[in-house]
Amino acid sequence: MRALVFDRKLEFRGDYPDPIAAAGECIVRVAVAGICGTDLEIARGYMQYRGIPGHEFAGRVVESQNAALRGKRVVGEINAGCGRCTTCAAGLARHCPNRTVLGILGRDGAFAEFLRLPDVNLIPIPDSIPDELAVFVEPLAAAYEIFEQVHLARNQTIVVLGDGRLGALVALALKAEKYLPIVAGHHPEKLARLAALGVGTAEESSLHEKFDVAIECSGSASGFQRAIELVRPRGNIILKSTAAAASEINLAPIVVNEITVIGSRCGRFQPALDALAAGKIDPRPLIDGAFALNDGLAAFEVAKDPLTFKILLSTP
Amino acid sequence: MRALVFDRKLEFRGDYPDPIAAAGECIVRVAVAGICGTDLEIARGYMQYRGIPGHEFAGRVVESQNAALRGKRVVGEINAGCGRCTTCAAGLARHCPNRTVLGILGRDGAFAEFLRLPDVNLIPIPDSIPDELAVFVEPLAAAYEIFEQVHLARNQTIVVLGDGRLGALVALALKAEKYLPIVAGHHPEKLARLAALGVGTAEESSLHEKFDVAIECSGSASGFQRAIELVRPRGNIILKSTAAAASEINLAPIVVNEITVIGSRCGRFQPALDALAAGKIDPRPLIDGAFALNDGLAAFEVAKDPLTFKILLSTP
Repeated sequence: MRALVFDRKLEFRGDYPDPIAAAGECIVRVAVAGICGTDLEIARGYMQYRGIPGHEFAGRVVESQNAALRGKRVVGEINAGCGRCTTCAAGLARHCPNRTVLGILGRDGAFAEFLRLPDVNLIPIPDSIPDELAVFVEPLAAAYEIFEQVHLARNQTIVVLGDGRLGALVALALKAEKYLPIVAGHHPEKLARLAALGVGTAEESSLHEKFDVAIECSGSASGFQRAIELVRPRGNIILKSTAAAASEINLAPIVVNEITVIGSRCGRFQPALDALAAGKIDPRPLIDGAFALNDGLAAFEVAKDPLTFKILLSTP
Repeated sequence: MRALVFDRKLEFRGDYPDPIAAAGECIVRVAVAGICGTDLEIARGYMQYRGIPGHEFAGRVVESQNAALRGKRVVGEINAGCGRCTTCAAGLARHCPNRTVLGILGRDGAFAEFLRLPDVNLIPIPDSIPDELAVFVEPLAAAYEIFEQVHLARNQTIVVLGDGRLGALVALALKAEKYLPIVAGHHPEKLARLAALGVGTAEESSLHEKFDVAIECSGSASGFQRAIELVRPRGNIILKSTAAAASEINLAPIVVNEITVIGSRCGRFQPALDALAAGKIDPRPLIDGAFALNDGLAAFEVAKDPLTFKILLSTP
């Protein structure tokens, strides 16, 4: 099959072996896939991943032991737990120590014609949601994970640090759930696009007030330090970026101001899918281009531009 | 009056001006004061503090507008809020941006014959609690603060990182509240003393299992990193040490494992005083020496020894 493959560098290949479903797994023909910041990191060597990247997708089941899934349009949760450990038994397969992760850890991803995932990971897409909207379910699920971890009151002040893909989706999810976040970034063009979608925005360096909640989505090493500065005593920092490298951090203000820092990664798909189905959120204005899989390398180049939000790959 | 004074170096002085109570403040004659890790840091220049250090004390009110306090044996909360800001109005004077802190920030402390504090900061000591026990209320309140911030289930596994003063008191508070913590440290002598008090202990480097909760009390730059290693996915890290300098920290595991980090500093005195009054906890076996105030410099030298727990100063 055709696929983008990372092995020291990213390449397009036309001869990559088709995936073979293990017991309990299905094969999905990918229709649309999204390029995320993690994919760009992987293409720089993050996680020492080798194989097909890509973990945001919508597709159609072409092979499954489960008749209810065959032929269905689906999205798929990206963490595949072992199903046997205490973490999986506790319903936290996303944290299974033996997990594979689609396009990130030990499992070929979505920048290909086909992928394989356990049947239990798949969720059918309602007919009302087209593929180019469904492809946002994975990153939106990561945004909705915040609500599963922290109770935020509607009158709390919330700053989202970072005007990139993640920050934009987190802000749209907050807005959909009737919060009033302010996205703080350094890119006037992107901030203007978010403002046009009804999201509050600010040039980050202009902020001096203290917020109840800071959501770190900048992926930069200084973002966490800035979040510590911007949050009030007893406030919450929600840490969404994994990309930040080890950096010099002064932890004393976290203790002195009794700040709570909540690490937040992937989320359950259903709340995000429900929000899309209910029309509460439509991130399609963030799409900056759609490329054929064969033009995947060019798509990555465009995605690297700090002024783009979301680039899609399609495999018609 | 006599006092220990830090101004570039720590000195004993016999001619320090007596404190003068402002409106709503009282004067307390200090009976016993405890030397804490923060005092040792201050004597190394932490907080750029100049003045009398010391914030753990028991004493007697010798001057107050409040007849109910005059002559009473008291302990005193160390943060004095402005009483006018929204933080104070929310009952969080401990986090008032304009606060002074006894012996730490803008307010002379307890290593002296007399100190001044707002009347509202004082809590009378029950007759059943002698001064050398009451002097532990302040650091125990910091330990009890954990229970006010986080719900810990009795069956959770808890590691306390650091076998110093703070780690010992946190462990004793956990034990008093029917938890089963393990104190992890590097000092066999201190671990043996804690084991003799019924606390579980371990050489830190011998730990490989994952805990539900890690409480960082080591005050070392590497303690936070070690806590991240030792906590399970979705587990909690409680950060008690303020002393840790800025250090290189890789935040990615906090996000990937969705760890929650809770900064935790001073606590309300009442829960700690109640625990002492109920006989649930007796930290007096941690006392390694009591010095007269005039011998305060010698007391500091002994307190610096990493094998000592608590050194007291008394002003009979």
